[in-house]
Amino acid sequence: MTQQVMNINLDRLMETIRQSAAIGALPNGGISRLALTSEDKKMRDLFLKWMKECGLETRIDEFGNMYGRRKGRNNELAPVLIGSHLDTQPKGGKYDGILGVLGALEVIRTLDDRGIETERPIEIVNFTNEEGARFQPAMLGSGAMSEIFNKQTVLNSKDQKGFVFGEELERIGYKGLQENRQQAPFCFLELHIEQGPVLEDQQKSLGLVMGIQGMTWLEATVMGRTSHTGTTPMNRRKDAVLLASKLITKIHTLAEEVPDLLAASGRIQAFPNVINTVADQVVFSIDIRHPDDHIRERFEKMLKESLSMMTLVEEMELRIKDLDRIDTDYFSKEMIGIMEDAAEKHSFSYMRMMSGAGHDAKYLNRITPTAMLFIPSINGISHCEEEFSEESDIEKGVQVLFDTVLVLANKETL
Amino acid sequence: MTQQVMNINLDRLMETIRQSAAIGALPNGGISRLALTSEDKKMRDLFLKWMKECGLETRIDEFGNMYGRRKGRNNELAPVLIGSHLDTQPKGGKYDGILGVLGALEVIRTLDDRGIETERPIEIVNFTNEEGARFQPAMLGSGAMSEIFNKQTVLNSKDQKGFVFGEELERIGYKGLQENRQQAPFCFLELHIEQGPVLEDQQKSLGLVMGIQGMTWLEATVMGRTSHTGTTPMNRRKDAVLLASKLITKIHTLAEEVPDLLAASGRIQAFPNVINTVADQVVFSIDIRHPDDHIRERFEKMLKESLSMMTLVEEMELRIKDLDRIDTDYFSKEMIGIMEDAAEKHSFSYMRMMSGAGHDAKYLNRITPTAMLFIPSINGISHCEEEFSEESDIEKGVQVLFDTVLVLANKETL
Repeated sequence: MTQQVMNINLDRLMETIRQSAAIGALPNGGISRLALTSEDKKMRDLFLKWMKECGLETRIDEFGNMYGRRKGRNNELAPVLIGSHLDTQPKGGKYDGILGVLGALEVIRTLDDRGIETERPIEIVNFTNEEGARFQPAMLGSGAMSEIFNKQTVLNSKDQKGFVFGEELERIGYKGLQENRQQAPFCFLELHIEQGPVLEDQQKSLGLVMGIQGMTWLEATVMGRTSHTGTTPMNRRKDAVLLASKLITKIHTLAEEVPDLLAASGRIQAFPNVINTVADQVVFSIDIRHPDDHIRERFEKMLKESLSMMTLVEEMELRIKDLDRIDTDYFSKEMIGIMEDAAEKHSFSYMRMMSGAGHDAKYLNRITPTAMLFIPSINGISHCEEEFSEESDIEKGVQVLFDTVLVLANKETL
Repeated sequence: MTQQVMNINLDRLMETIRQSAAIGALPNGGISRLALTSEDKKMRDLFLKWMKECGLETRIDEFGNMYGRRKGRNNELAPVLIGSHLDTQPKGGKYDGILGVLGALEVIRTLDDRGIETERPIEIVNFTNEEGARFQPAMLGSGAMSEIFNKQTVLNSKDQKGFVFGEELERIGYKGLQENRQQAPFCFLELHIEQGPVLEDQQKSLGLVMGIQGMTWLEATVMGRTSHTGTTPMNRRKDAVLLASKLITKIHTLAEEVPDLLAASGRIQAFPNVINTVADQVVFSIDIRHPDDHIRERFEKMLKESLSMMTLVEEMELRIKDLDRIDTDYFSKEMIGIMEDAAEKHSFSYMRMMSGAGHDAKYLNRITPTAMLFIPSINGISHCEEEFSEESDIEKGVQVLFDTVLVLANKETL
């Protein structure tokens, strides 16, 4: 197996990741860097400094999305856009979207090292509030920039403490101008950790992401009857916790019958939630995912019928509310092909796969040819301090990012 | 069916109940009168006035328990103690313990109406903080008076806002003296609503309570592994909500195999409780009740084995913590016999039954012969505004209370 020499500088990249990880550092190696907090500001300041050190022309748009532009030979051409996000979950890991931004920076540094000129300009980007941990919905910056979200709604959105997105942007000094948006890139490419166990299980270093699978979010409310646990015979109860338990178990049984279907109830709340009172109400979430929208829709329909039947039998009541429903997005086949060529050239192990999670690339895909590249997450875990990816995989990922950008930045059409 | 003339004055009693229900009144007929709030103070003031109008000698002990003493012919003899509590749940009903206190007042008024003298003195009592809704544990006043609870612990106990029991007692002017406790009554008798559906189902007006069934309170913690709902294949998950659902369903299946056994999980909490994250931890309560302590203990043992086995199979972890464990208390057979005679005399329908809930009588039973009398709760509901008992049942209950007190107050021994 011949392997070409690496172009990128892994040591420099890892040092950059370490410096990022020091901002909002948690005791077990993770990061707490919620969007538009003082930690986020500190990280943004550092990133801005790094971009300027590379001689990039920097811009901030009105959602705080940060861009750094490396000129091409022909600056009339639409730029290749690469990047991700630097914000984290309340107890997040140090790779997540960060790798995509700092990997993009490493691509620029490597181009500079080698004095490589490209036909098109290249822009690197840090999108605001991708995580959705502070302001909802997630992927706010990329969604707003792509005009998926309404500008005023985004600027007025509040966190749980009532702080306003637009005001927080101004407070940290990252409220820029609408004219600074990058709405017409040639294409967008995002490197990210997988956040799942598939690559590790399949022993592949790279995942060429074909798209982002659709999802349905539902909220089920089971209504029973409150009663005293010590005085109410079992057959006289309308126990909402018990019925919810049966329904959740059923959801999983049904999900397991459909290949590639994922279902989970991550959120559950009982009322009045008291030890000696049979609960009269339980609210729980249902998260359904499948790469094929049609199968996902049919599953949802069947599931609702099944749960309603079970509730009817128990003489209780069930309401199911739609929270969100998003169809599967498919990425640019041509860009996937270019990434594949790069992986092949280096003899890196890879596979094609769907992304289970949402990413900034999802919204960019609505306005420009887009693709994503995954590297393995050890044990498939993410959004926690233990999140980890091997340096060898990081190197391979950024190398393929580099090679792919080089092809794209010299390409006439897509 | 011959029925003796009633002695008590139902109209007067219902008017008294109405006046009580106006203090802390809620829109749908219920009461919000948490212990030691200004509503509780207002009710206490009114109750004190009513006792004084009957010529009772009133006392307050250091836990705020209120006593009113009607002299007997021989005031050296230990008094018959009757009563319950005037505090309510945050959204409580207007009967609950209130009926036991105001019913006791009606007994005194009826004795006065008829100029009846008794050998022994009779004391009526309003115990502080029976509900446990503001200060924990429940039955604080009766438990403290009976020296089940440590005096200083009780006086220092805090509500959720940090207000201290002893200070709140002083604030509302109901901090009395230790010497005012009634620790050596001849016996204690408590009238209460059933708070369950058994009497109504069995079409009985009265429940002669044989005792308070034992209970075990456990807290189960299921530990799984957090993962992203969109990226983690079903077979790679350690879903704590799913396993908890299976365990809760199993608890009920097992409980239904044992006659008279009650089990419920009223409280459940998931962590991190996020829609797109498979929960890594779920904590839920297990409330187990049975009149036979041995069966309850054996059930608990079997249950733990069963849940552990299920957890083992799922390769997850389960911890079960003991929260509380109380054995069944049995009331005075002789007192039950006296109540039965009274019910028979009036041809009231009745049955013997266990109490599923705890009551002040539970702790009084530790220091003196004790019994309880239940009347039906319509639809078995309580601790809610819809709590309701029929006037005809209230009348029968207070009549039997009257008749029983009359026998007890002229009795030499028990």
